Amino acid sequence: MEAGEGVSSATPTEEMNGAGNLMDFLDEPFPDVGTYEDFHTIDWLREKSRDTDRHRKITSKSKESIWELIKSLLDAWSGWVVMLLIGLLSGTLAGVIDLAVDWMTDLKEGVCLSAFWYSHEQCCWTSNETTFDDRDKCPQWQKWAELMTGHAEGAGAYVLNYFLYILWALLFSFLAVSLVRVFAPYACGSGIPEIKTILSGFIIRGYLGKWTLLIKTVTLVLAVSSGLSLGKEGPLVHVACCCGNLFCSLFSKYSKNEGKRREVLSAAAAAGVSVAFGAPIGGVLFSLEEVSYYFPLKTLWRSFFAALVAAFTLRSINPFGNSRLVLFYVEYHTPWYMAELVPFILLGVFGGLWGTLFIRANIAWCRRRKTTQLGKYPVLEVIAITGITAVLAYPNPYTRRSTSELISELFNDCGALESSQLCDYINNPNMSRPVDDIPDRPAGPGVYNALWQLALALVFKIVITIFTFGMKIPSGLFIPSMAVGAIAGRIVGIAVEQMAYHHHDWIIFKNWCRPGADCVTPGLYAMVGAAACLGGVTRMTVSLVVIMFELTGGLEYIVPLMAAAVTSKWVADAFGKEGIYESHIQLNGYPYLDVRDEFTHRTLATDVMRPRRNDPPLAVLTQDTTTVEDVETLIKDTDYNGFPVVVSRESERLIGFVQRRDLTLAIKNARQKQDGVVSSSVVYFTEDAPQLPASNPQPLKLRRILNLSPFTVTDHTPMETVVDIFRKLGLRQCLVTRSGRLLGIITKKDVLRHMAQMMNQDPESIMFN
Amino acid sequence: MEAGEGVSSATPTEEMNGAGNLMDFLDEPFPDVGTYEDFHTIDWLREKSRDTDRHRKITSKSKESIWELIKSLLDAWSGWVVMLLIGLLSGTLAGVIDLAVDWMTDLKEGVCLSAFWYSHEQCCWTSNETTFDDRDKCPQWQKWAELMTGHAEGAGAYVLNYFLYILWALLFSFLAVSLVRVFAPYACGSGIPEIKTILSGFIIRGYLGKWTLLIKTVTLVLAVSSGLSLGKEGPLVHVACCCGNLFCSLFSKYSKNEGKRREVLSAAAAAGVSVAFGAPIGGVLFSLEEVSYYFPLKTLWRSFFAALVAAFTLRSINPFGNSRLVLFYVEYHTPWYMAELVPFILLGVFGGLWGTLFIRANIAWCRRRKTTQLGKYPVLEVIAITGITAVLAYPNPYTRRSTSELISELFNDCGALESSQLCDYINNPNMSRPVDDIPDRPAGPGVYNALWQLALALVFKIVITIFTFGMKIPSGLFIPSMAVGAIAGRIVGIAVEQMAYHHHDWIIFKNWCRPGADCVTPGLYAMVGAAACLGGVTRMTVSLVVIMFELTGGLEYIVPLMAAAVTSKWVADAFGKEGIYESHIQLNGYPYLDVRDEFTHRTLATDVMRPRRNDPPLAVLTQDTTTVEDVETLIKDTDYNGFPVVVSRESERLIGFVQRRDLTLAIKNARQKQDGVVSSSVVYFTEDAPQLPASNPQPLKLRRILNLSPFTVTDHTPMETVVDIFRKLGLRQCLVTRSGRLLGIITKKDVLRHMAQMMNQDPESIMFN
Repeated sequence: MEAGEGVSSATPTEEMNGAGNLMDFLDEPFPDVGTYEDFHTIDWLREKSRDTDRHRKITSKSKESIWELIKSLLDAWSGWVVMLLIGLLSGTLAGVIDLAVDWMTDLKEGVCLSAFWYSHEQCCWTSNETTFDDRDKCPQWQKWAELMTGHAEGAGAYVLNYFLYILWALLFSFLAVSLVRVFAPYACGSGIPEIKTILSGFIIRGYLGKWTLLIKTVTLVLAVSSGLSLGKEGPLVHVACCCGNLFCSLFSKYSKNEGKRREVLSAAAAAGVSVAFGAPIGGVLFSLEEVSYYFPLKTLWRSFFAALVAAFTLRSINPFGNSRLVLFYVEYHTPWYMAELVPFILLGVFGGLWGTLFIRANIAWCRRRKTTQLGKYPVLEVIAITGITAVLAYPNPYTRRSTSELISELFNDCGALESSQLCDYINNPNMSRPVDDIPDRPAGPGVYNALWQLALALVFKIVITIFTFGMKIPSGLFIPSMAVGAIAGRIVGIAVEQMAYHHHDWIIFKNWCRPGADCVTPGLYAMVGAAACLGGVTRMTVSLVVIMFELTGGLEYIVPLMAAAVTSKWVADAFGKEGIYESHIQLNGYPYLDVRDEFTHRTLATDVMRPRRNDPPLAVLTQDTTTVEDVETLIKDTDYNGFPVVVSRESERLIGFVQRRDLTLAIKNARQKQDGVVSSSVVYFTEDAPQLPASNPQPLKLRRILNLSPFTVTDHTPMETVVDIFRKLGLRQCLVTRSGRLLGIITKKDVLRHMAQMMNQDPESIMFN
Repeated sequence: MEAGEGVSSATPTEEMNGAGNLMDFLDEPFPDVGTYEDFHTIDWLREKSRDTDRHRKITSKSKESIWELIKSLLDAWSGWVVMLLIGLLSGTLAGVIDLAVDWMTDLKEGVCLSAFWYSHEQCCWTSNETTFDDRDKCPQWQKWAELMTGHAEGAGAYVLNYFLYILWALLFSFLAVSLVRVFAPYACGSGIPEIKTILSGFIIRGYLGKWTLLIKTVTLVLAVSSGLSLGKEGPLVHVACCCGNLFCSLFSKYSKNEGKRREVLSAAAAAGVSVAFGAPIGGVLFSLEEVSYYFPLKTLWRSFFAALVAAFTLRSINPFGNSRLVLFYVEYHTPWYMAELVPFILLGVFGGLWGTLFIRANIAWCRRRKTTQLGKYPVLEVIAITGITAVLAYPNPYTRRSTSELISELFNDCGALESSQLCDYINNPNMSRPVDDIPDRPAGPGVYNALWQLALALVFKIVITIFTFGMKIPSGLFIPSMAVGAIAGRIVGIAVEQMAYHHHDWIIFKNWCRPGADCVTPGLYAMVGAAACLGGVTRMTVSLVVIMFELTGGLEYIVPLMAAAVTSKWVADAFGKEGIYESHIQLNGYPYLDVRDEFTHRTLATDVMRPRRNDPPLAVLTQDTTTVEDVETLIKDTDYNGFPVVVSRESERLIGFVQRRDLTLAIKNARQKQDGVVSSSVVYFTEDAPQLPASNPQPLKLRRILNLSPFTVTDHTPMETVVDIFRKLGLRQCLVTRSGRLLGIITKKDVLRHMAQMMNQDPESIMFN
C-alpha cells in the first residue's frame, strides 16, 4: 500500500501562489503547504485558484521561448492524453477480467482438453464437432467427473462434480479474501460509496493506489468466478478510477491539484461503466447522475472520450467472442402494447420494494458486522457464504451458471432455434413463418419446470445477495440486482404470455393478441424487471434507462423501461430517500454532502455556527500580537482545522483564515531555518512587521500562509443558502459575521451534522420533492 | 404581445417571506415586492430561498387536513404534470409543423388533384399507380404548368413552373415577415441565444409569451416552406420553451418563481430538440451542454421525461409517413476502416473553418444590419433574399427541394434499388450479391453530373446562409449547417470511393479495399461532414454526437463522428472561442455569464468593484438616520439596482442590502396607506424604532424589505473566485469588504465588463484549455 493519492513532493513554488493571497514571493516557501491530511476535506475554491495560477504561469512563460510554448501545449493536451490512457488501460483490464472470469467460472465444472486455458464456449467453438443447437456439448470439453472417472453420467459423477464445484468455489473465494486482507484492504466492496465521497472532495490515501488497482483486478476475477452472488460492474468503476489516479501522477497538473484530479476521476468512472456494460453514453450519464460531484462541461467531453476509448479497446479484445460491444445484446421483434404497461409498472413496484428490502436488510447486516464479533472473522465469513452459495446453487441450473449468463438467457427472446428449457414451447406443426417472428404458443413442460427453478433461484438470490454485499472481497451489486429483476420479470412475462394465449378473448387481450399473433415478449419483461430492481437499489433513473437503451439499441422500449425505473424509484423513495450507496456512505460516516438532499428547514447560520451559546469563545489569532508559543498552545489544545485571524480581540474584525496544517508546518520550518525565532517571537500576519521594542526577539511573518479571502456569511443567512454555498463552491468552512464582526465558524461537518439532525426531527418534510 | 414572463399578480403573502429575512409578519406586505423589472437579472439565491419557503409552508400545512395533504401532493406532482403537458404540446406542434411544411414546400411546385391538402409524397403514396422505383411520378400529382397549360415538358412549362416557384416563395416569406413584424417581433431568429440568456437568469418579458408561440409556429412553417436556407430546429426549441412558459402559468409554483420557471424551460428546450431530430437523449444533453445554466439532477429526470413524451407524441402523429421517429434515418451496411479517419478528420477541419467563416461573416453582416440603414427595411430584406434564393435554387435539383430532403438523400447509402442520380453507378452484370451489400463500383455519368451540381449547391448554401440567419423571420441554422457539411462530405466520400475503386492496389487501400469489396460508404462521409459543420458553428460536441448516434442507432460510427466533431471544435476554437449563439448574445449585449469561459487573470475584487478610485463614494443607506426624502433623492439621482445598508457612515459596517425596486414600492405604498409618513420621516431598518424626539413625524419601518444576508467577499478575493461565485450561485451583486468595513459593490454587469476587458487585452490566454 502506498499513498496513491498523496501530494508529497510538490515543488514549493508551484504550491505557494494559491489561495488568492498576495504573497510575498521573496520569502522562500517551504514544502507541503497547501496539501491535505488523510481523511480531510479539500477546499475546492483553493484548488481551483491554485490551478488558475499554475495555468497563468505556464501561459505567460509560453511567450518566452518555443520550448516553453511546446510545454504549454503539452500541458493543455495532457487532459486528453490522460483520458486516452485511462480508456486504453481500463478497456484492457476489463477485457482481461472478462476472459479470466469466463475461464475460471467454467473451470469449476470442467476443463478443455485441447487447451486448458479455453473456457467452455471457446473450447467448443474451436471444435468442429459442435452442432449448432447444442453448443454445450463437445468432446474436447470434459467435466471433472468424466475426466477423473471416465463416467459422464450417473449419481457418482454428479456428486463428484458437485464436490469439485464447491471446492473450486471455496478456493477462489479464499484466495480473494486473503489477497484483500494481506495486500489491499481498500480493494473490498464495490468502491462506489468511497469514490462518491472522494469525488465530493474527501481524501482517502491509498484508496485509488497502485496496489488497490492490482489486487482489486485479481480478486475481482476470483470473487466473480467463485460463483458468489456479486457482479463486476461496481468494482470495475473502482478499477477505472485507480487507472485514472495512476495516470494523474504522470502530470503535475493533475497530481498536484486535488480538484483537477477529481475531474479525471469523474471521467474514469464513466469509462468504468462504459466497459462494464459496453454503454459509453450510459457511462457518462452514470458518472454525471450518480457518482460525480463537480462535473463541468469540459469533464463531460473528456468523460465521453474516455468512455469511448475504453469501449473500443474492450471491443478489440473481444471477450464475448463476437464483435458486439454490449454485455447483454438483445433484439426483440415485437412491439409492446399499451396494456402491457400494467405489468411493467407492477414490476417497477416490485423493484422498489426489493430495493427497500435490500437496502434495509443489507445495512442492518453490515451494521451488525461492524459492531459485533462477526466483523473479526472476515475470511471465515467469506468462506461460509461461499460454501452456502455453492451448495445451494449447484443443483439449480439457473444459479449454477454465472449470473451474467443467466441474465443473458432471461433477456433473450425465444427464436425458432433456441434449445433452452425456457423456450420449450409446443409448436404448431403448420407454422410457416419467418424464423424470428414466432406467434405466442402454449408452454411445454420445460417452461413449467423452468418456472419452478426460477422461483427458487429468485428466493435464493434475494436472500444470499443481502449477506454477500459488503463482505471483504470486491463485490458489485448491479448484476445480482438485475438478476433478481430479470427472474421476476421473466416469470411475469411468461405468465402474461400464457394468459394471453389461453384467454385471447378477454377484453384486455382482444385488440392485440389474436391467436397466431406474436404479442408478448417475456424477454422484454425480464429486461424491464432488471431495470426496475437496479433502479430500486441504486435510485438512478436516466443513466439506467440509457444503459438499457444502449443494450437494446432501440428507442422502441424506452417507455416501458422509463415507466418501470420511475415507478421503482418512487416506490423506493417512499420508504427512504437513500440509495444503497448513500446508505453505505452514511454507515461509514463519510462527510458526504449529497447534491440531491434538499434542505428545507428554517434554521439560520447563527443556529449552526460554533461556538454555541455556552461554549468557550472562538479560537482566533490576532494579526500582530500573538506569539509563537501562543500559537503552539492553541494548536496543541484544540483540534480545529484552521483559525480565523482578526485585527484585535476587541474589534473582532476579520482579516483572514489560516489552516492548522500550514501553521504547524510554517512554525516548524521557521524554528529550524530562521534564526531568532523563539517561543516568545511575535507572529504577525500584516504586510509590515509591527513596531516592537528592540529587546523583543525577531518576529515571524506568516502573511503568506494567510488566506485573505475567507468565505463569510452573515448570521442571518438561512441554512438552506449556506448548504447551497457549501455544495456549489465546495467549501471546507465558512465564517459567520454580524455587521462586520466575526461571530463564529461553520465547517462542512457542522453542516452535515445539522442536516442529519434536522432530517431525524422531521423526516417527512423531504419526502415530496 | 403580453407579459408572458411576468409575475404581475403575485399574492402578497407568498411573495414576502423570501430572501431569508427574519421578517415581521404582522406588517401587512404589499404587492410586487420581490419581482423583477424587464431586462433585469434575477437573483437565483433569492428565488431558491423563496421556493423553499413556499415548500415549507405547504409541507407544514399538509398535516392540518386531508385537503391540504392532497394539495401538497398535487404541488409535488405538478412538475411532472407540466413536463407531460410540454411533451404533448410540443410534440403535437412539431408534428403539425412537419405536415404543413411538407405540404407547402410541395405546393411551390404543384398540387395534388385527388386532395389538394396532400403533399407530393402523400399524394403518390395513396395512388395505386405509383411504381416503386419512381415514387415521384404519379398522375394525381401535377406540376403547375401541367395543370394550367396541359404540357408537362418543354421550355414554356419550365419557365412557368420556375415563375410560380418564385412567386409562392415570395408570398410565403412576405407573409412570414409581416406576421412577425405586426404581431410578435420576438418570434424572429432561432431564439436560442435569447433562451440561453433567459435561462441564465435574465428577464425578457413576452419573449416566451402566447403570441410569440402562435406567431412563431405559423411563421416557421411559412419561412421553411419558402425555400429559404434555414431550418426549423432552433425555432422548435423556442416554440417548446414557449409551451413550457405557457404551462408554468398554470401552477403558482412555477409562475411565481423565476428560478423554478427556468428549470421547466430547460426541460422544454430538451423536448424541443427531441422533436426536432427525434432524439430524446440528444435533446437532454443539448439542453445540458448548450442551453441550460442551472441544471440540477431533478431537471435531468424531468427533461428526459418531457423529451420522451414529446418524441412519442410526434411519432403518433407520424409526420414522416412511417413509424420511424428520427428525422434522418440511416442504416449502413459496411464498417469503417482506420485509414478513413484521415478524410474524416479533414472533414472536421473543413467544419471548423466553415464554422469560423460563418460566424465571422454572419456577425459582421448582422452588425451592419444593426448599425446601418439596412436594418430599417426588414420586409424588403426578406423579400430580396427570398427572391435571390428562389431564382438561384430552382435550376439546381439539389437546392430546389427542401433542405432536409437533400440531407436525407446525401446521408443515404446507395442500395440496389435506389433511383437517385447520386446512385448512378455502373453495375457489374455478373453481380450476384444480396441487395444491401453492394461492392464499390465505378461512378456513372449521373454521379459526375451530381457532383457538379452538389459543388454549386455547396457554394450557394455557404453564401446564402450567411445572409439568411438573423433576418426578421424564424430561422434555425442546424439544417443549413448540416446541409453544407453533408454536401462536402458526400463529395469527399464519392472521391474516396472512386479512388479506392480505381486504385485498389495503392498501399492505403490494399488491406481493406479489394475489388468487389464494399469498402467506402459515401453516405457516412456526408453524415460525418454534417456533424463537423454543425459542431463548428455551435461548438457542441457530446450532444451532437449523441444526436447523430440516435439517428443511426449504432455505436459503430461514434468514433468517426467523435473525431470529426472534436477536430471541428478545436479548429474553430483556435480562431475564437465563441459559437454562433454566444456571438449573437454578445452582439445583442445580453448579460450572459458563460459557464465555459474560464477567467484566468490575476485581478482582485478590489480592481473591479465600484466606486473606483476617483469616483464619488458608494451610495449607501444608514440603518436609522436616513429620511424618506433622502431615499427618494437617492433613487432619483442614481440608477443603481440596490443599496447597501450600513450601521453608520463612519463605521461602514454592513447590515444588509435593499433592492431599488422594493424600496420604491415600499415608500410609494407607505405614502398612500400609512398615516404620518411624510418626506421628513426617518426610514429605519433596525428591529426597533429609533429613539426620536416627539416632534418628529412617524418613522417608516423597512426591515422587511432588507436582505439581511447579502453576499460579501473581501477586497483581496481573486476575480476568478468572484466569477465562480457569480456563476455558481447566480448572484446579481456582491458586496466587497475589508476587515468588516464596506468598501464597494460588484454587480454582474461589472463582472461581465471586466471579463470582456481582460479578454481583449490578452486573447491568447484563453486559447488553450
